[in-house]
Amino acid sequence: MLSEFKITRRVEFAETDLAGIMHFSNFFRFMETAEHAFFRALGFSIHTTQLDPPVGWPRVHAECDYKRPLKFEDEVEVHLLVKEIRAKTIEYGFVFRKLGAQAEEVARGSLVVACVARDAKGQMKSVPIPKAIAEQIAAVPKEKLS
Amino acid sequence: MLSEFKITRRVEFAETDLAGIMHFSNFFRFMETAEHAFFRALGFSIHTTQLDPPVGWPRVHAECDYKRPLKFEDEVEVHLLVKEIRAKTIEYGFVFRKLGAQAEEVARGSLVVACVARDAKGQMKSVPIPKAIAEQIAAVPKEKLS
Amino acid sequence: MLSEFKITRRVEFAETDLAGIMHFSNFFRFMETAEHAFFRALGFSIHTTQLDPPVGWPRVHAECDYKRPLKFEDEVEVHLLVKEIRAKTIEYGFVFRKLGAQAEEVARGSLVVACVARDAKGQMKSVPIPKAIAEQIAAVPKEKLS
Amino acid sequence: MLSEFKITRRVEFAETDLAGIMHFSNFFRFMETAEHAFFRALGFSIHTTQLDPPVGWPRVHAECDYKRPLKFEDEVEVHLLVKEIRAKTIEYGFVFRKLGAQAEEVARGSLVVACVARDAKGQMKSVPIPKAIAEQIAAVPKEKLS
Repeated sequence: MLSEFKITRRVEFAETDLAGIMHFSNFFRFMETAEHAFFRALGFSIHTTQLDPPVGWPRVHAECDYKRPLKFEDEVEVHLLVKEIRAKTIEYGFVFRKLGAQAEEVARGSLVVACVARDAKGQMKSVPIPKAIAEQIAAVPKEKLS
Repeated sequence: MLSEFKITRRVEFAETDLAGIMHFSNFFRFMETAEHAFFRALGFSIHTTQLDPPVGWPRVHAECDYKRPLKFEDEVEVHLLVKEIRAKTIEYGFVFRKLGAQAEEVARGSLVVACVARDAKGQMKSVPIPKAIAEQIAAVPKEKLS
Repeated sequence: MLSEFKITRRVEFAETDLAGIMHFSNFFRFMETAEHAFFRALGFSIHTTQLDPPVGWPRVHAECDYKRPLKFEDEVEVHLLVKEIRAKTIEYGFVFRKLGAQAEEVARGSLVVACVARDAKGQMKSVPIPKAIAEQIAAVPKEKLS
Repeated sequence: MLSEFKITRRVEFAETDLAGIMHFSNFFRFMETAEHAFFRALGFSIHTTQLDPPVGWPRVHAECDYKRPLKFEDEVEVHLLVKEIRAKTIEYGFVFRKLGAQAEEVARGSLVVACVARDAKGQMKSVPIPKAIAEQIAAVPKEKLS
């Protein structure tokens, strides 16, 4: 059972903007990168073609609170924590920490994703999370989220 | 006094992902594009060097609820509504509507931005919104936001 | 017969970098945006599902020469010129001009794209450009390219 | 003296497009990421504020030849080779290899960058590459470039 996962990224030049800091939209890309690394740690690609039917994970909700900026070449840890796993959706929390002599929290975000598959007519429909995935994921204890 | 603003964008190829839809992070870029067009309509650049001292508008919070996907070449209206203007921050709401025979709401988001300027030491500090800007912006009536 | 096409774009905040100018990779995105608008002017989407079989247009070569930077909120004209159309490929040239009291050339680029379709095994193969498209496109006279 | 450098990247979801492959513009971002890692290996940030005056490295020319596509989650090696170092410019070559049982070349690119600094009036001017940097960089032997 996996409940959390960490990745490290270095802020790239193309991810900064003229204010000299990482563009706020890229925090969402980093969240997703951590989510996909978490899935690989479970043995799956998020583009889950190993299962029949293949499932996808569109975003239902995304949010981020920004505390401090990230600059070019900053190294940042993206810490994914499973906040809740329901029948058809997963809610992830993310804590961004700038690495250095002392790790410093710079932002906090969350994503709610839904499990979908194509029905007989080719339409994307919300479906229960496949057992092979669901049985490997557990929410972190509530006290870890504060 | 301006309380709302609309822009139209067409989803570009580089904004889609392998799921065939606009990547969810780009909704945040579209919100920002609408915010900056709103500022130009007020006679300012968001990169507000016309004022002394120049002010900037870092994001404090960003969120989005996704209802339907946008596809390549879809035309989308991004409708900005000022939800609240306080001494040092503005909260914007955004409604995304896919244009066509019948406009269809596809997503809804919000941004909270803070007004900042450099202090004598060159540090970015939260400051009151300059009067020249604040006196031109009003929140929309609450009933328009539901 | 169409040989050239122009679009106008305004440089967005997320397209700039910490050097305060448009990131060089975005010139390639603007070239592509002009190419797709050119295709729409011909009555096709570049994601050409109207034809049987559908064709796609992967890039074989891309290049750009940068003369002057573009800044946030600059308006730029992207001028596409068909340099050559062969049986299976098209070469486009692009001239970027910053608009203002006097339009000023800031960059010049080119793209070579190949027409592909899936064969019986589902593999992408280079194919002749469908007649419905090819008969609408002509190269510009050589003297227009200098 | 350093003449080449390698980095490894995994293709992220947001870097793909609806054709299911990495968007062609992102090859240029990967080139730049390798260039910046190369500079860090020399003891400098590309955003070279350690020197007086600080220097920057705008792109003068960029190009790429695409042989095979990269897909989501592919691991790719970006191999930077210094093709030529002149008084005021550097030309880098790049070979992209998809990693796996057998590394496979997928693309080849190049960047020409100019060394610039602000003059007394604050204007960016082309300047000689600072000795502290230039004396650490050598072109690879010509035979390595074919």
